[in-house]
Amino acid sequence: MTTVRSTLPEPARRVAGEALQESLVDLLGLSLIGKQAHWNIVGPRFRSIHLQLDEVVSTARSYADQVAERAAALGVAPDGRPETVAARFALQGTKDGWLRDTEVVRLLVEALETAIGRLRGRIDATEDADRVTQDLLISLTYELEKQRWMFDAENQHVEE
Amino acid sequence: MTTVRSTLPEPARRVAGEALQESLVDLLGLSLIGKQAHWNIVGPRFRSIHLQLDEVVSTARSYADQVAERAAALGVAPDGRPETVAARFALQGTKDGWLRDTEVVRLLVEALETAIGRLRGRIDATEDADRVTQDLLISLTYELEKQRWMFDAENQHVEE
Amino acid sequence: MTTVRSTLPEPARRVAGEALQESLVDLLGLSLIGKQAHWNIVGPRFRSIHLQLDEVVSTARSYADQVAERAAALGVAPDGRPETVAARFALQGTKDGWLRDTEVVRLLVEALETAIGRLRGRIDATEDADRVTQDLLISLTYELEKQRWMFDAENQHVEE
Amino acid sequence: MTTVRSTLPEPARRVAGEALQESLVDLLGLSLIGKQAHWNIVGPRFRSIHLQLDEVVSTARSYADQVAERAAALGVAPDGRPETVAARFALQGTKDGWLRDTEVVRLLVEALETAIGRLRGRIDATEDADRVTQDLLISLTYELEKQRWMFDAENQHVEE
Amino acid sequence: MTTVRSTLPEPARRVAGEALQESLVDLLGLSLIGKQAHWNIVGPRFRSIHLQLDEVVSTARSYADQVAERAAALGVAPDGRPETVAARFALQGTKDGWLRDTEVVRLLVEALETAIGRLRGRIDATEDADRVTQDLLISLTYELEKQRWMFDAENQHVEE
Amino acid sequence: MTTVRSTLPEPARRVAGEALQESLVDLLGLSLIGKQAHWNIVGPRFRSIHLQLDEVVSTARSYADQVAERAAALGVAPDGRPETVAARFALQGTKDGWLRDTEVVRLLVEALETAIGRLRGRIDATEDADRVTQDLLISLTYELEKQRWMFDAENQHVEE
Amino acid sequence: MTTVRSTLPEPARRVAGEALQESLVDLLGLSLIGKQAHWNIVGPRFRSIHLQLDEVVSTARSYADQVAERAAALGVAPDGRPETVAARFALQGTKDGWLRDTEVVRLLVEALETAIGRLRGRIDATEDADRVTQDLLISLTYELEKQRWMFDAENQHVEE
Amino acid sequence: MTTVRSTLPEPARRVAGEALQESLVDLLGLSLIGKQAHWNIVGPRFRSIHLQLDEVVSTARSYADQVAERAAALGVAPDGRPETVAARFALQGTKDGWLRDTEVVRLLVEALETAIGRLRGRIDATEDADRVTQDLLISLTYELEKQRWMFDAENQHVEE
Amino acid sequence: MTTVRSTLPEPARRVAGEALQESLVDLLGLSLIGKQAHWNIVGPRFRSIHLQLDEVVSTARSYADQVAERAAALGVAPDGRPETVAARFALQGTKDGWLRDTEVVRLLVEALETAIGRLRGRIDATEDADRVTQDLLISLTYELEKQRWMFDAENQHVEE
Amino acid sequence: MTTVRSTLPEPARRVAGEALQESLVDLLGLSLIGKQAHWNIVGPRFRSIHLQLDEVVSTARSYADQVAERAAALGVAPDGRPETVAARFALQGTKDGWLRDTEVVRLLVEALETAIGRLRGRIDATEDADRVTQDLLISLTYELEKQRWMFDAENQHVEE
Amino acid sequence: MTTVRSTLPEPARRVAGEALQESLVDLLGLSLIGKQAHWNIVGPRFRSIHLQLDEVVSTARSYADQVAERAAALGVAPDGRPETVAARFALQGTKDGWLRDTEVVRLLVEALETAIGRLRGRIDATEDADRVTQDLLISLTYELEKQRWMFDAENQHVEE
Amino acid sequence: MTTVRSTLPEPARRVAGEALQESLVDLLGLSLIGKQAHWNIVGPRFRSIHLQLDEVVSTARSYADQVAERAAALGVAPDGRPETVAARFALQGTKDGWLRDTEVVRLLVEALETAIGRLRGRIDATEDADRVTQDLLISLTYELEKQRWMFDAENQHVEE
Repeated sequence: MTTVRSTLPEPARRVAGEALQESLVDLLGLSLIGKQAHWNIVGPRFRSIHLQLDEVVSTARSYADQVAERAAALGVAPDGRPETVAARFALQGTKDGWLRDTEVVRLLVEALETAIGRLRGRIDATEDADRVTQDLLISLTYELEKQRWMFDAENQHVEE
Repeated sequence: MTTVRSTLPEPARRVAGEALQESLVDLLGLSLIGKQAHWNIVGPRFRSIHLQLDEVVSTARSYADQVAERAAALGVAPDGRPETVAARFALQGTKDGWLRDTEVVRLLVEALETAIGRLRGRIDATEDADRVTQDLLISLTYELEKQRWMFDAENQHVEE
Repeated sequence: MTTVRSTLPEPARRVAGEALQESLVDLLGLSLIGKQAHWNIVGPRFRSIHLQLDEVVSTARSYADQVAERAAALGVAPDGRPETVAARFALQGTKDGWLRDTEVVRLLVEALETAIGRLRGRIDATEDADRVTQDLLISLTYELEKQRWMFDAENQHVEE
Repeated sequence: MTTVRSTLPEPARRVAGEALQESLVDLLGLSLIGKQAHWNIVGPRFRSIHLQLDEVVSTARSYADQVAERAAALGVAPDGRPETVAARFALQGTKDGWLRDTEVVRLLVEALETAIGRLRGRIDATEDADRVTQDLLISLTYELEKQRWMFDAENQHVEE
Repeated sequence: MTTVRSTLPEPARRVAGEALQESLVDLLGLSLIGKQAHWNIVGPRFRSIHLQLDEVVSTARSYADQVAERAAALGVAPDGRPETVAARFALQGTKDGWLRDTEVVRLLVEALETAIGRLRGRIDATEDADRVTQDLLISLTYELEKQRWMFDAENQHVEE
Repeated sequence: MTTVRSTLPEPARRVAGEALQESLVDLLGLSLIGKQAHWNIVGPRFRSIHLQLDEVVSTARSYADQVAERAAALGVAPDGRPETVAARFALQGTKDGWLRDTEVVRLLVEALETAIGRLRGRIDATEDADRVTQDLLISLTYELEKQRWMFDAENQHVEE
Repeated sequence: MTTVRSTLPEPARRVAGEALQESLVDLLGLSLIGKQAHWNIVGPRFRSIHLQLDEVVSTARSYADQVAERAAALGVAPDGRPETVAARFALQGTKDGWLRDTEVVRLLVEALETAIGRLRGRIDATEDADRVTQDLLISLTYELEKQRWMFDAENQHVEE
Repeated sequence: MTTVRSTLPEPARRVAGEALQESLVDLLGLSLIGKQAHWNIVGPRFRSIHLQLDEVVSTARSYADQVAERAAALGVAPDGRPETVAARFALQGTKDGWLRDTEVVRLLVEALETAIGRLRGRIDATEDADRVTQDLLISLTYELEKQRWMFDAENQHVEE
Repeated sequence: MTTVRSTLPEPARRVAGEALQESLVDLLGLSLIGKQAHWNIVGPRFRSIHLQLDEVVSTARSYADQVAERAAALGVAPDGRPETVAARFALQGTKDGWLRDTEVVRLLVEALETAIGRLRGRIDATEDADRVTQDLLISLTYELEKQRWMFDAENQHVEE
Repeated sequence: MTTVRSTLPEPARRVAGEALQESLVDLLGLSLIGKQAHWNIVGPRFRSIHLQLDEVVSTARSYADQVAERAAALGVAPDGRPETVAARFALQGTKDGWLRDTEVVRLLVEALETAIGRLRGRIDATEDADRVTQDLLISLTYELEKQRWMFDAENQHVEE
Repeated sequence: MTTVRSTLPEPARRVAGEALQESLVDLLGLSLIGKQAHWNIVGPRFRSIHLQLDEVVSTARSYADQVAERAAALGVAPDGRPETVAARFALQGTKDGWLRDTEVVRLLVEALETAIGRLRGRIDATEDADRVTQDLLISLTYELEKQRWMFDAENQHVEE
Repeated sequence: MTTVRSTLPEPARRVAGEALQESLVDLLGLSLIGKQAHWNIVGPRFRSIHLQLDEVVSTARSYADQVAERAAALGVAPDGRPETVAARFALQGTKDGWLRDTEVVRLLVEALETAIGRLRGRIDATEDADRVTQDLLISLTYELEKQRWMFDAENQHVEE
């Protein structure tokens, strides 16, 4: 049967493969809801958040590629098909139609926090299985935490 | 209620909106299966097709953005959420796991042909409703037909 | 008498020439009021709208050049002199002095809507006269409708 | 037999294919006589016209590529071989040897006018056969009419 | 009342503000007649002068932006609306229609000389009011005098 | 003793040296509080002001380098050590911890106004001592006044 | 009679001129058949050879320009008109219609070998006539021999 | 009270926050003394060390930004104000006035060694608290150790 | 004696130094056999593998530089002389002369797998000695595993 | 008689013209001796000074162009012919043959000091005649004083 | 005595050194008269020739650098001092003051022809002495003959 | 047997092939000892020579590629394997461990002189066999002689 060989022993391959597959779904889903908000946002902060969302999408797409190619490099066939993303997406989704800017900011803070929490679990899980995969997940967490901070700071309402 | 005003009269807005929404789903789905094949392809033409698939994905993403923003510009909220893409995607999908290079070439020829056939219908449908939307769909068809030719030419098996 | 020859028969040349000349005045006027707002805007969205206005001005200047050179290419001498722009400018103008950011957003939505309405008439008018001119006006309409959406989305006030 | 499938029904394929094949010969021939003039021009406007001719050649080569690949995309094998270009070239040719700058300007005005007249016929012919091909021919006409204007404006002799 | 504070005392602010407002009108008008000539020029020097005019327009637009933003920085709302430019434009204007290359060269020499003469007066006027504004006007004069020389050199007719 | 020779006579060197040393401390301090606000800002204008602050920091750093190298060029050893910046910094400082966006805007307006007032004094002081140093301070003032205007325009609250 | 003066004595000018004129025809023909194959190739190596052919075309066009301008620089009017290229082209031509990838590879190996053989004769012929022309032909041979190797290496069929 | 939420539990947040805050002060201080030496260095190696110091400053500024934004991302407000940098800076400082090149090299070796020793402690301290922060400190240490080697190699005096 | 000081205690320095020295030899050897295959490959996949090999060489050269400079930064003089590379190279070598494309693919898969296995041992060995060195080896492993996957995927033969 | 008109009254034109003509000779001479030293320098600082000299030459050439075009813009024909540069060059020259690096540094310090002293006189002389010319000479002095400092700092010999 | 060693035997070194030294003077002189004409040209072709002259100057400067560094590489100290250029310059010079465009074109044709004639002699002279030097002179001749042709073509007067 | 065809007759192929194979070993060895010195150099000229060595390595790598591909183009399989480079390397090698900057400079002068001497022999040897190969070796010699001069100039010790 056609298959790509792994450089990891089987149990380690399975642990790393699961962490990568789950991260792939999170990232592809995040790229889709990020674009959804990018197109449907309305309100006085339209332009500012519209542009910021494209940075989230760009980060999500770039890491989805690295995560999926890392899986392939370990002999694990990654699954990023539409039906898989829809069925297994575990972050906050969004309603159909126009979205107020304040809603968008809250949505992103929540979706990113869920993604980060899941990633921290995978960082622990891959420690013994594959340091190389762990390192990729650490740098991904760094980027998502930076994005989360920016939306959270934007979310602080101040009364004078 | 929050809403973006349209510059088109209602029936024209609805016709153009539907053509754009359907195209958006086709393009987002195409970008996902293009990446799926990019990651899972195996066989002697791996590198050549691996690179070509990224051009398809890049075209699909760029036009998804233009198509969705055109919908918003007409006062139609585009829907590109994961569940929508999975539920309404009408092109050829792909199986899970590694994909032989010959399978990938055939898959792309078929998926692109279906997408093109659907686009030609929308070009006719939007002729009276909105020339501007029609023009966008024409240039999208131009790009997809160029991609389809390249996979079809690649698909020609020759015996000597 | 000095004159550039036309590749169109006379009636077609006159129809296309008028459509182009009117579009030229709209675009030059739009570039001037866009800059006026860029310089005079005040309010909490200063930076965001200040930057967005430069994109409108850049679009308007680029299309003014294409529209005027298209007229010349058809043997019609374009007229973009200061006195002509002032006398024939038909979009919303703006008052002298500082402009609040909310005013600016409303002004742009209105000016762009008027420009788009006028362009749609010219797209119809040039259909039989000159497909090439019509195509230029279609792509110009695409850009202005995109700009109009962005200001309209920015214009949506949301109460929580 | 080896062949690339078409996305168009047969009569439409034939109409579009002919329009594209004829345009290909016009453009390849234009690129050759443009270079011929670029190398052989003499006279006080040498440098100015020498540079302008390279813009014509660059436009002709770029559109020749698009036109031929469009034909291939429609399942029509394009023919741009030396013997074909020489046999079917229908624009003004040029004599051997050095060319005065005034002659070159007149030659280009005439060759471009012939090319444009032929293209306008094909724009009409492809309207029902293939909108996508028509759109490509429209944008090509736009570029050639712009080039023609520039040589025609250059051609205006003024006595004081 | 909404207003941007000035860092200059009132009399100085008024002197600098007037110098900048007048320069703004000169520059916007110059950019419009520069483009008008760019589009309508005919004659054997078409291409050469056509390109040179775009450098004048580019200089005029860039300095119009700096001059208007300098006014705003001093708490003076700049006025560059179409009606203002038309009403207060004090340089040489141009007739409607095609323009011979020799006419264009003479027009630019004259318009630039008038602009330079007016600027030299403002350099003196702002010496005590605002050194920073004066420095901006000096560098603008440098650029316009360079442009003027080039058109004047082009203007020298030589008999052999 | 090791020393870089000056091209200015001693009294002029001392006057120019003092003006440059004081400007250096203002600019280094400004770059530090600009970054401090860049990192600690919260509120709905987070992204917009966060980005604008990096332009202030970039301007301050670039001119600090020019100002210090100008001092060295005049044989005056510049002093930009941490203890010097802290001890002699004369602009508005900022409190520790998160900063509301409205506070940040007001802080920048004030700090820039103080810096500008001090620079205008130095422009007068260096007139006789060193025209070259004066010219550098004039262009620095131009940049800081532009930045001040932008924050002041952003600071205008509008009630509707 | 209008003519460009030569810096070479007459016999040398004629020898160098012939070598350059023949090379020009070879290169223009090569650029046309290279594009013909680029458009008409089919088979599993489509993408790989399609891209490689564009490098051949790019080399051929660039050297055609240098060779023709070298002729002009020697006072020899180069002739690259369609009818001349068709009549005097001495390399392998290609049949009309789609081309299998294996055929294309063989065609290029043969055409390049013929071109190289002809060039080596001209390198000898120009040794005494004009070292500068010889040097240009040597560097052209270097590039074509590199291209030939790549197609020849691609041409090696291996049975396992 | 206004505050950015953390994705870390409290004890971990405090440990990581302290490591980042101390690193921020080291880096801002390093960037200031690096520039101080860049401006005041004299001696035969002036140009070579002058340029090398700008690389140190560039590294220090870039990591100061990453370190401070990492703190903010963890809900810790970073403190990089002038008074904080001066009060808590723990690396080698430098005297006022011109600095011999040999002194500068020794100063940088020492300051970088101290910074590296402090960073190695923080790498250990953050191991359990936050892997992501640890990873940032590891890559910072990599860069500073590379810089230290270069100054140390430069510091080796050789007698022949 | 001339020596660069280390920032690590002696046992750690020795462990890290050995890991780096061995990696340096692997990488320099890999860059040489990668180029050897790049030049000598023949067969229908010539172009595709020829280009891919240059990516391997580029990765190997870039990491050889980082690995050697890391050794120097730790006070360990790296040894990459020809005789050392030849004597200690432990990956698969290659025979002299032309290489079939299928052989090249198999060779690279094997050489990369050996290199990766050796690197994984060094990642464990440097865990306690030097986290910074370990991090460099992790990122190197990431790149080589990505390259190995691509050749392994290329290596999958499919029968239909 | 052929002549370019001036925008300055005659006495001012003459004063500015002389200042510019003298500066032109200084700069052209400086660019020649800078290159002479760039080619002939020997000694342990070869590479460092060799590169620095090219920055001096680049500055000198760029300002020579601005200074000469400024003269032309004022209706003064600049004179930069070989015989003029040789006859009127008033800075330090250099001997024929190889030059020690220490000699080169001293030569540049002296030549630049002489040039700066002469420029300071012209800055005073043009104050009343032409502010625009004065401003150009000020910015030239800024650049040459920066270059002079760098060579002077390089010139400081330190004994330990 | 300080001297750079040669890789050529003495007689060859002297022959090559003389050829290079003479070429250096020709090129430096050519760059000076090219700039002189660039600044002083007047007439209807001002802009066109003004730009072309900068290409001659750029070529001359670039080859002067290569020629002088080649001399140094052979152990021959090149001499490009102002007094040397003036004393030994053997090409056509130019008069002081404004230059008609027709005069400039004739001047360049003549100066370039003289330079080329001298270079052809040196190509023969260095054949046995140093092939590497000869190759540099051949490529320089190629560039100058191309420039000569362009001015000669520009020089062809045509009567109609 | 698999083999790439040659365009040269057999004796010429063998002569050119040997010259290229020997040059390849020289260049690969040079790139390895250049990097060895780049990493191990110590002393006050560390940075200056460290950077210069990377230019040598870059030249050596680039020409190694050209030389090996030239061999392949002539049907000669080049051999650049580690064992071949070590066994046949004929230039000066270097000892293990840190290298003083003065030693490095002397080493490079010697290694380059040996390489150049060998190349000059091959230039003569290939004269009749293959002008194209000879031309490549001439341009390689040009680059190495330039590098040799720079190290030799750096090597001149001067006593004052």
